[in-house]
Amino acid sequence: MSIAKTPQPPYYAVTFTSIRTEGDNGYDEMANRMEELSANQAGFLGMEHAQSDGLSITICYWESLEAITDWKQNSEHQIAQAKGYETFYQAFATRICKVERDNIFEKK
Amino acid sequence: MSIAKTPQPPYYAVTFTSIRTEGDNGYDEMANRMEELSANQAGFLGMEHAQSDGLSITICYWESLEAITDWKQNSEHQIAQAKGYETFYQAFATRICKVERDNIFEKK
Repeated sequence: MSIAKTPQPPYYAVTFTSIRTEGDNGYDEMANRMEELSANQAGFLGMEHAQSDGLSITICYWESLEAITDWKQNSEHQIAQAKGYETFYQAFATRICKVERDNIFEKK
Repeated sequence: MSIAKTPQPPYYAVTFTSIRTEGDNGYDEMANRMEELSANQAGFLGMEHAQSDGLSITICYWESLEAITDWKQNSEHQIAQAKGYETFYQAFATRICKVERDNIFEKK
C-alpha cells in the first residue's frame, strides 16, 4: 500500500473504518475480490489501507458521487455488503466525503 | 483506538496518510503530544488511526473548517508540522474533506 495519487480537488473519498468479528469467515478472499473489482470501476481514483490494534481503515477515492453510487450498487459488492452486516463486522462506519483541499508532500 | 462517535453530517474530516523516514527521531513523543493537544481543541469530534506495512492513516473529525484552521495554526502544532517536513515523513497527504453522509453500524 502507498499514498494514493489523486488529482486536484474536488474529488470524493469514502472512508471505511471497521472492527471485525472473530475468525476469517471468508473475509480475506472477499476483501481481495472487492479490491480488484472496485479498482476496475469507472471513476475509481485510488485506495489507501492500514490496520492495527483491531481497527481497519480503508479510504477509496472517486471522481464523483455517481461513481460511488454505481460501486455501491454493483451486484457482487451488494453480496459483500450483506455479508459485512451478517458476518464480517462487529462495527463499522462508512463516510461519504467531498475532498475540498489537499496537501501532498514527497521528500526529494 | 475505536470508531469515532461522530454527530449527524455535515461535519469535516482531515485524512492524513503518511510514510515515515527511518528511525524515531522524537516522533512518538511528538505524536502523543499532538493527539492530546488536538483532542482539547474547540470543535474536535474524534480521531481514528491505524498503521501497517509502512503506511499510517489518521482521520480527525471536526465541527467546521474554522476549527481545522485554528488547529493548523496552533503554535505547538506548527512546530510539529515543520518537523514533519524536515524529519519525520518521507511522504504524506493531508486531505480536507466535508462529510456529506455516513452509515454507522454496530452489531447487537
